[in-house]
Amino acid sequence: MERKPNDTKSLAIAAARSLVIDMTNKAKSGHPGMALDVAPAMVALFQDHLVADPKHPDWVNRDRFVLSSGHVSALLYATLHLAGYDLSMDDLKSFRQLGSKTPGHPEYKETPGVDATSGPLGQGIAQAVGMAMAEEAIRAQYPGADGVFGHYTYCLCGDGCLQEGISQEAISLAGHHRLSRLILLCDLNGATLDGPTSDAFSENLRLRFLASEWNVLEVKDGNDVNAISKAISKAKKQDGYPTAILIHSVIGYGAPKQGSHKTHGSPLGEADGSQAKSVYGYPYPDFTVPDEVYSQFANTFGKRGEAAYRRYQATFQDFQAKELKEAQRYLDAFEGNFVDAVVNYPAFDSEKAESTRSLSGKCLKALHDAIPCTFGGSADVAGSTLTNIEGEPMFDILSRQGRDVHWGIREFAMAACCNGIALHGGLLPYASCFLVFSDYMKPAIRMAALQSLPVAYLFTHDSIAVGEDGPTHQPIEHLAMLRSVPNLEVVRPADYVETIGAYENIRLERNHPTALVLTRQNVAPVGGNSVEGARKGGYLAYKPKGATHLILATGSEVALCVKIAKALNENGSPVAVASLPSVSRFLSQSEKYVNSVLFLPRDKRISVEMASTFGWASLAKHNIGIDGFGASGKAGDVIASYGFDEEGLRKKVEEILRLG
Amino acid sequence: MERKPNDTKSLAIAAARSLVIDMTNKAKSGHPGMALDVAPAMVALFQDHLVADPKHPDWVNRDRFVLSSGHVSALLYATLHLAGYDLSMDDLKSFRQLGSKTPGHPEYKETPGVDATSGPLGQGIAQAVGMAMAEEAIRAQYPGADGVFGHYTYCLCGDGCLQEGISQEAISLAGHHRLSRLILLCDLNGATLDGPTSDAFSENLRLRFLASEWNVLEVKDGNDVNAISKAISKAKKQDGYPTAILIHSVIGYGAPKQGSHKTHGSPLGEADGSQAKSVYGYPYPDFTVPDEVYSQFANTFGKRGEAAYRRYQATFQDFQAKELKEAQRYLDAFEGNFVDAVVNYPAFDSEKAESTRSLSGKCLKALHDAIPCTFGGSADVAGSTLTNIEGEPMFDILSRQGRDVHWGIREFAMAACCNGIALHGGLLPYASCFLVFSDYMKPAIRMAALQSLPVAYLFTHDSIAVGEDGPTHQPIEHLAMLRSVPNLEVVRPADYVETIGAYENIRLERNHPTALVLTRQNVAPVGGNSVEGARKGGYLAYKPKGATHLILATGSEVALCVKIAKALNENGSPVAVASLPSVSRFLSQSEKYVNSVLFLPRDKRISVEMASTFGWASLAKHNIGIDGFGASGKAGDVIASYGFDEEGLRKKVEEILRLG
Repeated sequence: MERKPNDTKSLAIAAARSLVIDMTNKAKSGHPGMALDVAPAMVALFQDHLVADPKHPDWVNRDRFVLSSGHVSALLYATLHLAGYDLSMDDLKSFRQLGSKTPGHPEYKETPGVDATSGPLGQGIAQAVGMAMAEEAIRAQYPGADGVFGHYTYCLCGDGCLQEGISQEAISLAGHHRLSRLILLCDLNGATLDGPTSDAFSENLRLRFLASEWNVLEVKDGNDVNAISKAISKAKKQDGYPTAILIHSVIGYGAPKQGSHKTHGSPLGEADGSQAKSVYGYPYPDFTVPDEVYSQFANTFGKRGEAAYRRYQATFQDFQAKELKEAQRYLDAFEGNFVDAVVNYPAFDSEKAESTRSLSGKCLKALHDAIPCTFGGSADVAGSTLTNIEGEPMFDILSRQGRDVHWGIREFAMAACCNGIALHGGLLPYASCFLVFSDYMKPAIRMAALQSLPVAYLFTHDSIAVGEDGPTHQPIEHLAMLRSVPNLEVVRPADYVETIGAYENIRLERNHPTALVLTRQNVAPVGGNSVEGARKGGYLAYKPKGATHLILATGSEVALCVKIAKALNENGSPVAVASLPSVSRFLSQSEKYVNSVLFLPRDKRISVEMASTFGWASLAKHNIGIDGFGASGKAGDVIASYGFDEEGLRKKVEEILRLG
Repeated sequence: MERKPNDTKSLAIAAARSLVIDMTNKAKSGHPGMALDVAPAMVALFQDHLVADPKHPDWVNRDRFVLSSGHVSALLYATLHLAGYDLSMDDLKSFRQLGSKTPGHPEYKETPGVDATSGPLGQGIAQAVGMAMAEEAIRAQYPGADGVFGHYTYCLCGDGCLQEGISQEAISLAGHHRLSRLILLCDLNGATLDGPTSDAFSENLRLRFLASEWNVLEVKDGNDVNAISKAISKAKKQDGYPTAILIHSVIGYGAPKQGSHKTHGSPLGEADGSQAKSVYGYPYPDFTVPDEVYSQFANTFGKRGEAAYRRYQATFQDFQAKELKEAQRYLDAFEGNFVDAVVNYPAFDSEKAESTRSLSGKCLKALHDAIPCTFGGSADVAGSTLTNIEGEPMFDILSRQGRDVHWGIREFAMAACCNGIALHGGLLPYASCFLVFSDYMKPAIRMAALQSLPVAYLFTHDSIAVGEDGPTHQPIEHLAMLRSVPNLEVVRPADYVETIGAYENIRLERNHPTALVLTRQNVAPVGGNSVEGARKGGYLAYKPKGATHLILATGSEVALCVKIAKALNENGSPVAVASLPSVSRFLSQSEKYVNSVLFLPRDKRISVEMASTFGWASLAKHNIGIDGFGASGKAGDVIASYGFDEEGLRKKVEEILRLG
């Protein structure tokens, strides 16, 4: 019989590590390196601190935990298993197998206890920051619910996450907002995939966190579980600043190659695995855990969570008894149920040309007034995206109830934090900037789509009509980029009616992200359209008798196309116009409806969009757009030079009509 | 007569400021705020320090200057005009007009003296870091040219750039690499577009720079031109670290609304402009500069640059005389002329299945050996993207001649620095990571395409065949995203022949960026193809007699489609296969050639790509692909579950054939 650890906690750590070895060995895939070194931190967190109830993994008041270094998934699954979540030993044995509950990286909704999908480095930290912001905001938004709501947000990251720029944006935001209930465990094992961290990184992390107004604690020995636990205790008592706990560890601890980056990305194999287990003093067969480990988790994590859940239920019932309406509002907010909200979109002038950014601003204000848990803002261009809500205080250390978020010039963190806010629940997050800078947000937009999160992006300045700011600020390929993301709805409304339609869909459908794409310049109303039609994603805007061609247009081009089509019709060339604010939604309607709008065959259809034509050929043979970069100049001059003024566009259409 | 400044330098600053007011007023557009406050820094830099010759703006050994806050363009143009560049007063008067040399944001190659396109915040810093890396590398790569080459790189940024995460990645890299010839002027005017900087930002920047091993200097009064100049002098003497000079200024200095973010984005107008000019003591009519200002620039900046240019010519001639071949290598490198390089791509086994990442690695090595100025690496996944060059030292403070760059886990900075390296010239930059993380690089890839920079991206792990790592690591929409970027060539080679073709195009065409998209898994060779065909971007890979349908495939699907087509042909269903490694290149061939490959009409064509079908409809009516997210599992299982194994794919094709 080999040496066993002296105490059950050490045995639990050994069990977690051994499971990691077994899981990655069996899968012949995975990343044991960091999972092995960070096991003590994970056990300390779960056994001594984390408040969550494995029987109610979706309980809204649980502590949140984000594994930013998603490649450490094996350790997370092992820990969740030990901690009593609905994750069996068989689930662990099917690690990284198709259809299992234990995929390669943590996936939200695939595994009980997994609070966020992670993997793309750095974004987990931002998701955690978003959760911590949500926690602060919600606590402030229900003053009558004092004592009901309140939890910590924990995040575990490695050196890799901290090298990504998004980490700095998120760290900076967390410090600025003094998110003292945010605790970031930084596992610094000195190795990344390609070698020692020092090959590419020589930051003084303590200083960097201090520079962003964080509290910094340090644990010199990543195996010192008590030191880690004490540091977390200390961090929880912090009432001024978020805390980073820098934990110095040895990658692949216990493995013959420990300390080397070579343990990062490949299973240890049988021999090295056995050797490691003997270092841990873990004499059990593969996938075997002694009962005392389960008992210990049950007696610590399990009991604490169960009691907390029970306590929460009691305080919540008090809240309900005291303030029924407020309690219902709270429940609706967490369920994302805004069906009954009465949104008073202001009346509009059906004659007046107005920018869709301005119309969007009015809708946002109406939504804000009707749904008191909207929460968002802009990456420092609120004055241009018109997302300022008059009278709404800024979310701030001094006004936690404020729902207007000043994200600063941090588009990526804005989007990734919004993912965290949506994951957290209880708020309706939105984010705004110029469409061209959706580039900066793309990695987080993808994560929103992958996690089916109801985040709204309000992108303005949507074409070369931006004018003077020139090609760096003029979107061309961005509509294509966004439309190609699965599960992301892209809406480019043409007028107020369509903008309201988009907002209504955002309010009523809480199962996917939506990108609203809005003009800077004024556009004329389409005329004769309805919110109902707009909400279908596409409809016929103009259909003269005997139309030989059908124009498919979006946004700023719709009214212009209708105007041109009317003129053409008067000249004996009847051309119809369909407005397609949301192509994906339109195509998801019944075949009958789709065919009624696309009433002419593809080779008689002409797409018109002041952007890249990429992607339009599926709907129309003829594609009018811009497949090069823009230019700086007066908006009118630029538009004309690309042939998107009335005359230029009419000529392009006529040319296509001539060719048949 | 109003009060005038006491000295010519102050008058020059007043002139620059007044020109900014005149330019933005005349254009009724632009961003005077920061331009007004940062004018003293700009004048100090140009008059006292910057070494560049306005008569030879492309001189390879000039100091580089990147205006990271591109919205300050008016000040840059005004300064370039005063400094003697080919930029007339009329050019300044046509600021932000279509076709002018003075576009809204600085654009590389549009204006003499503009070293980089800028505007998207934060990226300018990274471009400057890339330039400074290039400077260090080139100095080390030509030991015989001692004294010929060597310059400083200056960058001017504002609070905004420093909020973007990319800035931290770039700052971290610069500190790690001890780029002591990099000097970053940080204009801290305490305001951004939406309000005071403090609304969203409370970092201690001094600490943050120190944390990344920078030298930090501070100038308390942004109007103290001598203090700024002294700080730059001090920074130039630094021999250990890059220097950040934190300059505290007042936004919109001189304007009635100075100190307010309201001066940021709108011209002052006549009245406020006049008032500001009287604060500066500048009594001249609009667009008027007294001769003494021009003279002073000519006597300082002009003379210094001319002398330096002359000195350089002399030392370069010595170098040529001493080492003719080395001097020619240097010239070729700066011209991007690698036509005569003899690249020994190793022989290959036409029977052996091999991953295209592995084949790419062999080509990269061959290119590296043939062209001694390749310079690049990976964002910490070199072991997976197979971009390690055996025996090549790492670029480092200890080995500046090393051409293997460890970018760390900083994809965005990697790409943006590569832009800086390409802008600098003298090196052939490449960058590598997993295709899915091209998301992180998108903003910089766009900037490469916009600037027509010859950067090569080596993206591996290009599909769901990644397997176990799951949907966060499986690209779906990324090919569409990249193909929609104007001026970016996207190549997804099918085998070694096509990979060589791609590398040959990269070597020989130095006028656009290229993204190579490569498999993780082994793929069989197409068979019977040629590098010549591959270099055309598309060719027929299999054409049975009487083919009724034509499959268009790329990368890992080509050999599989040929196999399936052969089997179908044996069963009496002749289907041809075209391989289209580079769709954009293929479509740029002669109509005759394109038609010879696409020899059947569109409705008889079937695109096959293990990725989003978005964008394929322009070439084929039938599109086989994956329009949702991937899944974690064994690669074979995942591939089969999406119907991309041989059987699944054959069935999909047969179904299409059945429908006619």
